Amino acid sequence: MTNEQYHDLIQPYESAGQMMRTRLDTLNKNLYCKTTVSPIHNILYRTKSKRSIEKKLEKMGHSDSVQNAKDYLKDIEGIRVICYFIDDIYNLVNALRRQSELIVIKEKDYIKNPKKSGYQSLHLILEVPVTLQEETQWMKVELQLRTAAMDYWANLDHELRYKKTEKEIGEVDEALRQCADVIRTLDLRMLEIRKKIASM
Amino acid sequence: MTNEQYHDLIQPYESAGQMMRTRLDTLNKNLYCKTTVSPIHNILYRTKSKRSIEKKLEKMGHSDSVQNAKDYLKDIEGIRVICYFIDDIYNLVNALRRQSELIVIKEKDYIKNPKKSGYQSLHLILEVPVTLQEETQWMKVELQLRTAAMDYWANLDHELRYKKTEKEIGEVDEALRQCADVIRTLDLRMLEIRKKIASM
Amino acid sequence: MTNEQYHDLIQPYESAGQMMRTRLDTLNKNLYCKTTVSPIHNILYRTKSKRSIEKKLEKMGHSDSVQNAKDYLKDIEGIRVICYFIDDIYNLVNALRRQSELIVIKEKDYIKNPKKSGYQSLHLILEVPVTLQEETQWMKVELQLRTAAMDYWANLDHELRYKKTEKEIGEVDEALRQCADVIRTLDLRMLEIRKKIASM
Amino acid sequence: MTNEQYHDLIQPYESAGQMMRTRLDTLNKNLYCKTTVSPIHNILYRTKSKRSIEKKLEKMGHSDSVQNAKDYLKDIEGIRVICYFIDDIYNLVNALRRQSELIVIKEKDYIKNPKKSGYQSLHLILEVPVTLQEETQWMKVELQLRTAAMDYWANLDHELRYKKTEKEIGEVDEALRQCADVIRTLDLRMLEIRKKIASM
Repeated sequence: MTNEQYHDLIQPYESAGQMMRTRLDTLNKNLYCKTTVSPIHNILYRTKSKRSIEKKLEKMGHSDSVQNAKDYLKDIEGIRVICYFIDDIYNLVNALRRQSELIVIKEKDYIKNPKKSGYQSLHLILEVPVTLQEETQWMKVELQLRTAAMDYWANLDHELRYKKTEKEIGEVDEALRQCADVIRTLDLRMLEIRKKIASM
Repeated sequence: MTNEQYHDLIQPYESAGQMMRTRLDTLNKNLYCKTTVSPIHNILYRTKSKRSIEKKLEKMGHSDSVQNAKDYLKDIEGIRVICYFIDDIYNLVNALRRQSELIVIKEKDYIKNPKKSGYQSLHLILEVPVTLQEETQWMKVELQLRTAAMDYWANLDHELRYKKTEKEIGEVDEALRQCADVIRTLDLRMLEIRKKIASM
Repeated sequence: MTNEQYHDLIQPYESAGQMMRTRLDTLNKNLYCKTTVSPIHNILYRTKSKRSIEKKLEKMGHSDSVQNAKDYLKDIEGIRVICYFIDDIYNLVNALRRQSELIVIKEKDYIKNPKKSGYQSLHLILEVPVTLQEETQWMKVELQLRTAAMDYWANLDHELRYKKTEKEIGEVDEALRQCADVIRTLDLRMLEIRKKIASM
Repeated sequence: MTNEQYHDLIQPYESAGQMMRTRLDTLNKNLYCKTTVSPIHNILYRTKSKRSIEKKLEKMGHSDSVQNAKDYLKDIEGIRVICYFIDDIYNLVNALRRQSELIVIKEKDYIKNPKKSGYQSLHLILEVPVTLQEETQWMKVELQLRTAAMDYWANLDHELRYKKTEKEIGEVDEALRQCADVIRTLDLRMLEIRKKIASM
């Protein structure tokens, strides 16, 4: 893939991401009535770098052509949504499912079923319409939704694995998994407190 | 209008503005083929303040109710698009007119017909769909398109009129109008140079 | 305090805050050698609103004059620094203490000694030089440093207390305190894992 | 120069640029008393890319080592300041010269003496102190100051020269120079109007 091909490839993905973040902002302001706090703590996003695209295609056993990137990669544009509480995540996802201009083509719920490492998040692949000059294209965007506590764990997990060997990671894997359990408990307790207050 | 009413009033307008800027960004990247420079130099925007809304309604002879703001004001959300060349402005407007998700409800061309003061810009009132919880609302957004030279004049004109009396302005009015003429000539000459180069 | 007085009051504080954030950014890039991850996760900041200044002065039993705000308030400009690990916080504070252009005039360590509610953070009051037209003024800036886990708790605690009565809070106080303990344990465990990896 | 060497090279330059922009912001708010509009319209900046650094060193006949970049390049970090009026530019430069924490090591005044192409701007090379872990380094930063009208011309000039041959440019050179003259006249007339109003 040349630099120019990469540049052309990602342009509509970036537009789709921007459109999607606009929709999330709007939802954040309107999902709950005024008496409750808005569900989203903050939103992060990135477009996959040329090098990451090439690496991932290679790992999948495909050549790094533009067409293969479009066909096989679902996370060229990625958005991370950090929520306050677990139920905010599901409320947001339900609202997105009701929007007729979006299509949810895949969902993986690592909150209900965490990864072996302890990783928790809800992953969605969406298709989002982008109006170019003459036509409308539907672009794939990956959405990761998690609470701030899950994000805390994922960040530290990433920091600790950064430039480490398999063996080194192996020796702390169990400790990391236990921390993930603690965070799970924490999120559930916080949610209980919220529900208790709401019912007062 | 209470602070809370103002806050509720502007929310969907702000979402419409954000959506509109996303559309403009996408157009900016796709309006011309790769060999030409993109048409937009930069984009500014603002939501009308509570005080400006109240003042304007008063000036129009209406009470400052939320309903009156919705009914009579067309510039609660305003976007300013600064373009490189005059023809970029018209190319953008034509592309917006082709987008089925937008409605142009009003157009005033102060480039073809400058205001008496010398002011030049193209003004559009658009209606933009915003997806809230359950329904889609069409919100009015004002678009002002101008070249950087027109913007230069408008900024200085505004600076110079700032906190000045009618009489003081009167004494420099003619000089400002002449400067507007110079800018008009400048924009046309620059456009000629562009066309000459394009035809080489 | 008039709006104009407020505007003039906060200007040098905002400049001091901006200067301080620039220093933190520079430290973040240079505190550790290249092999380690940088200490700061993200930085938030705010300037105290006119209303908050007036309320706080009233609560302290002072009239809301500009002079009283300058004399009695130490948090007109506030910066929150979210770190990855507890030791990053202390490393940053030590580096700030070494900078000759800053003066630390107060330190409260709510990490070593959490508040009764469970709140944890390290608070510093600094004096930062700001170069205005002719002279240099030393402005107070409040710095709050905490881990992402402490920030998670503080956010949820704030959300849950939002618009609630004393009695309602009372019924969940103990549960919130227990969550703060869980977070304390979590931060220490994560730090242990980091140290274990560093020593490999 | 490897990617990593480039990354390490630019870090203190970026910090110096950020510090310099903070100083400009502070000056902008304090240069004039309240009755007048602030001098700066907007600020742009960029760090020279790896490829531009290598190209420029090659053109100068030097190898692309990190040391050569530090020794021979004065514009690794560049800031562009767009002002409203010509005299704002000189007032800002005078204020910068009075700041004891900055050293002006070079000045080129292309406003008094425009380039042959018609290009106008005031260029400064400054040295700015950056506090790293243990020591303070003085980094070079290039400042370009111009009015919005000069910036308009420079942008269009750049657009028109973009991907064009020498011969093509040659055929419009004279026309571009004439436009620069028009802009020169415009800036002076606008300044006259300002002075007239100020003296009322």
